[in-house]
Amino acid sequence: MKKVIIASTSTVFGGTYLDYLLPTLAEHFATVSNLIFIPFARPGGITHEEYTEKIKPVFQQLNINVKGIHEFENPIEAITNAEAIFTGGGNTFVLVDMLYKYNLLDAIQHAVENGVPYLGTSAGSNICGLTMGTTNDMPIVYPPSFRTLGLVSFNLNPHYLDPIEGLEHMGETRETRIKEFHHYNPQSVLGLREGSWLEVVDSKITLKGNLSARLFQQGKAPVELETGSDLSDLR
Amino acid sequence: MKKVIIASTSTVFGGTYLDYLLPTLAEHFATVSNLIFIPFARPGGITHEEYTEKIKPVFQQLNINVKGIHEFENPIEAITNAEAIFTGGGNTFVLVDMLYKYNLLDAIQHAVENGVPYLGTSAGSNICGLTMGTTNDMPIVYPPSFRTLGLVSFNLNPHYLDPIEGLEHMGETRETRIKEFHHYNPQSVLGLREGSWLEVVDSKITLKGNLSARLFQQGKAPVELETGSDLSDLR
Repeated sequence: MKKVIIASTSTVFGGTYLDYLLPTLAEHFATVSNLIFIPFARPGGITHEEYTEKIKPVFQQLNINVKGIHEFENPIEAITNAEAIFTGGGNTFVLVDMLYKYNLLDAIQHAVENGVPYLGTSAGSNICGLTMGTTNDMPIVYPPSFRTLGLVSFNLNPHYLDPIEGLEHMGETRETRIKEFHHYNPQSVLGLREGSWLEVVDSKITLKGNLSARLFQQGKAPVELETGSDLSDLR
Repeated sequence: MKKVIIASTSTVFGGTYLDYLLPTLAEHFATVSNLIFIPFARPGGITHEEYTEKIKPVFQQLNINVKGIHEFENPIEAITNAEAIFTGGGNTFVLVDMLYKYNLLDAIQHAVENGVPYLGTSAGSNICGLTMGTTNDMPIVYPPSFRTLGLVSFNLNPHYLDPIEGLEHMGETRETRIKEFHHYNPQSVLGLREGSWLEVVDSKITLKGNLSARLFQQGKAPVELETGSDLSDLR
């Protein structure tokens, strides 16, 4: 049974790392004792070791042992034998570049399709879409492709940000950027606000959390989707 | 004589298109009757024709005739014979992809080195740096490379944005993103606030406009540079 959680962010304002998701994760990883963490996105440039150490205490609360993918001699084999996978946030370009470098995209995709529960936050959620083409990150490295896992049949925009009232900055709003995306790409884009996540159980996709999400489709006006919405048929 | 203006934005808050730069452009393009516009960045997805029509009235005020690069049968030849070049803002990925598609990067670089005055705004300024790796834009298409014109020996971050006081959004600040860039890239990055521009005359690079700019260098704390600063030796 495919089990995926695609979260907009690891941390909501005023909260601690993953605290708002902890009850959900207890259920999501109920049968899991060992989890493989993918620290490749390196938020703020921290090392793989530092990042892995940072997340360990969170999973200790769930009695789950964490090992970083960088600790394995054969990362593909590690993913193939994984009980659970968590890809953390940071820079999506760096993350995707590393996943290609270690040839891990197909391995993760197969593992998840075979029922290994997956958690993604931020950059780790971006890669659940068809491409990383709707990331907010800076292109600090050049990955071999923008194609990602395709665990859902659309694209994600984590940390979705509404236009800020009164801001005198002339850079594009998030909505303008996604509109530009649709001049070149057909797939829907889901803007996930911080505190929202998608729950994927087999072919069923549900919007969770307290907030609505913003759906962008080519040639259509954007719409707000209430929490609890069924997104299984979204393409 | 190399003559380049690298502007953070085409439009400052409350202003009209290029109005704040008009006296500067009158001087920069003093001997120019015909200008080639590169509309490839397509802000908001507008067509090359629409974008070119939009900028014509501005240059009419300077008695300069504008033709879009898309109107030429041989774009490389057009650039080689150009009197002046202006690359407008929009999406940097789309712009760079098109410049590679038409094999124009070297042609523009040679023209500018040979004295053809160049103006860039926003995405058109990003490409003046060594790479487009510090753009703020969304990666809506996959260009063949991130290498750009290298008219200056560092990278640009146009529309530089200071952290917004009181914002509860957890996405990375611009400063964090540029710090992450320096984990993978050695070159300096100049954060150009809206209303600032660089003036390049031969090997002399000067910060212009009313605002300071923020300089990021690998392994150093960022510093503020006052307007009028000489950046000729920046690498």
